[in-house]
Amino acid sequence: MKNIVALIGSLRKDSVNRAAFNHYKQLAAKEFNIVEGEIKDIPFYNADDKEPAVVTKLAQQIKDADGVIFFSPEYNYSVPGVLKNALDYLSRSDKQPFSNKPAVIVGASPGLLGTGRMQYHLRQIGVFLNIYFMNKPEVMINDAYNKIKDGKIVDENTIKVLQAQIASFAEFVTKC
Amino acid sequence: MKNIVALIGSLRKDSVNRAAFNHYKQLAAKEFNIVEGEIKDIPFYNADDKEPAVVTKLAQQIKDADGVIFFSPEYNYSVPGVLKNALDYLSRSDKQPFSNKPAVIVGASPGLLGTGRMQYHLRQIGVFLNIYFMNKPEVMINDAYNKIKDGKIVDENTIKVLQAQIASFAEFVTKC
Amino acid sequence: MKNIVALIGSLRKDSVNRAAFNHYKQLAAKEFNIVEGEIKDIPFYNADDKEPAVVTKLAQQIKDADGVIFFSPEYNYSVPGVLKNALDYLSRSDKQPFSNKPAVIVGASPGLLGTGRMQYHLRQIGVFLNIYFMNKPEVMINDAYNKIKDGKIVDENTIKVLQAQIASFAEFVTKC
Amino acid sequence: MKNIVALIGSLRKDSVNRAAFNHYKQLAAKEFNIVEGEIKDIPFYNADDKEPAVVTKLAQQIKDADGVIFFSPEYNYSVPGVLKNALDYLSRSDKQPFSNKPAVIVGASPGLLGTGRMQYHLRQIGVFLNIYFMNKPEVMINDAYNKIKDGKIVDENTIKVLQAQIASFAEFVTKC
Repeated sequence: MKNIVALIGSLRKDSVNRAAFNHYKQLAAKEFNIVEGEIKDIPFYNADDKEPAVVTKLAQQIKDADGVIFFSPEYNYSVPGVLKNALDYLSRSDKQPFSNKPAVIVGASPGLLGTGRMQYHLRQIGVFLNIYFMNKPEVMINDAYNKIKDGKIVDENTIKVLQAQIASFAEFVTKC
Repeated sequence: MKNIVALIGSLRKDSVNRAAFNHYKQLAAKEFNIVEGEIKDIPFYNADDKEPAVVTKLAQQIKDADGVIFFSPEYNYSVPGVLKNALDYLSRSDKQPFSNKPAVIVGASPGLLGTGRMQYHLRQIGVFLNIYFMNKPEVMINDAYNKIKDGKIVDENTIKVLQAQIASFAEFVTKC
Repeated sequence: MKNIVALIGSLRKDSVNRAAFNHYKQLAAKEFNIVEGEIKDIPFYNADDKEPAVVTKLAQQIKDADGVIFFSPEYNYSVPGVLKNALDYLSRSDKQPFSNKPAVIVGASPGLLGTGRMQYHLRQIGVFLNIYFMNKPEVMINDAYNKIKDGKIVDENTIKVLQAQIASFAEFVTKC
Repeated sequence: MKNIVALIGSLRKDSVNRAAFNHYKQLAAKEFNIVEGEIKDIPFYNADDKEPAVVTKLAQQIKDADGVIFFSPEYNYSVPGVLKNALDYLSRSDKQPFSNKPAVIVGASPGLLGTGRMQYHLRQIGVFLNIYFMNKPEVMINDAYNKIKDGKIVDENTIKVLQAQIASFAEFVTKC
């Protein structure tokens, strides 16, 4: 049983990405113990400030985990600012929480590309953070308001792709 | 005399990008009246919240301007979270402040690439926001702690590139 | 009536992107005279070689045109090598054929993202070539083997998006 | 002793990237047996054609190797067409030569960014090809005409970075 930290890029209560996270936890219950790493109280990164306790705590939580899963929408063809800010603050921590950490991305959006543009930006960010993102299967859930309803993924193909990602990630985490 | 809004991606008091902004204002004083658009008090974007007054005001300020200049560091190979969050909130405004707006980027960083990675991410974000970024000259100030000191740009080549960008942007803003 | 050069990223005879080009020519017949710029006989770029006549001729053709339209598949999440090689050779021409040239992209692919990844790489290449890509509407034709059949676009929504792009590009070319 | 295939993105005889390859082979002689995978005779990819023997052979060579090293310039802010075309043809091979293959990138260019823009495009291509690129150290040799002369790397810092990359890649290849 591997311990995984989930970082969620939307603050919205009824976010389809939060719903995907909740459903994913159940689908992966045999392989992963997934706990949310909370980012909403991290202040904007400012090099003049002292590291806040919320950052230190989350950095330790990620450092102790076996891997990371990002659940995120795409905002303006890139990573949401709130998620990017969390990465910015965490990256300055002496703990270097992401270093050599295996990771995958799940993204859901109403549009055509299903957060594809966000995901490649996040992968480039990962080169600096020294995250090892698994290549395949990529999970880009487009038309998300029809595939995720009432907090559940209701599209069978999406569930199959997630199950395939979970199986691959379980191997990947063990190998890394 | 054109009115330009500057968005600054670093909150740090002694930021080299803020210093570049201050120096740029003087260099461009004949062509541009440059005013900072303040982003530090914009909360994290949350689709559940009502648009805060600070966003409405900044959206109007940008909409009324003839162009936008971004002064920004590169954090983790991409756009700083604080700047991205401002764009995220502004993009949801009914005013569509960035639509058809000409823009340029100035980036300073201590590293080799001088914020190059951030700039291409920002240009991709601009496709969605319908910003028209000028192509050339690009301004990537590497080794910035030696080229920007005590709040001034002290490197002659950097000043020449900025002057070339200002001259080109003055034409670009008029044409757009 | 504006003169446009089309660059086609697939060599395949029954390419859906070539079919899109053929259909586009008809849809745009009132606004644009679109002529294909042939790239298949351009050798691999080698700085040791003299510029071949085929490159000189195509460079002049593009330089004389009012704009450029790219019709291209996505290969391996980026621009097809054959198209990239043409750009590489053309970029070394003294004529600087792409400089300040307005352009748009049409991409068709069987996959989910409809060549989105290729298009953002091409836009980044355009910064160096000094191409001005129109921002919107972007044309990413996914599920292309169902939307383009027997050399025709058979999907009504796709035709509407193309018509919207043609109308916007006619204005954009005039303004640039 | 690990077997590595090198793919070289420049056809130029006196290419600084070819010089880097030659020097790298010596620096890595204890860890790696590095053999060039020749790409210059691969025709442009065309889905209508049968796979040429040169592709089948190179696909097998890569499949049999323990890893891949790319030595490449940056052309027009991206991957050279000749190298991209080789990847396009190799990717269609039934052998899937790159699948799960560890890889690193060495790039040299006269400009400021030292092929940085090319490298992130290549990493994105690698997601599709299922290449696992090592994150660090990245090797971006800027000002290359001064650092690489008469077919040798003459800059001590560059040699140190290459040695660090070789040491890390030796571990990475073993682990993958």
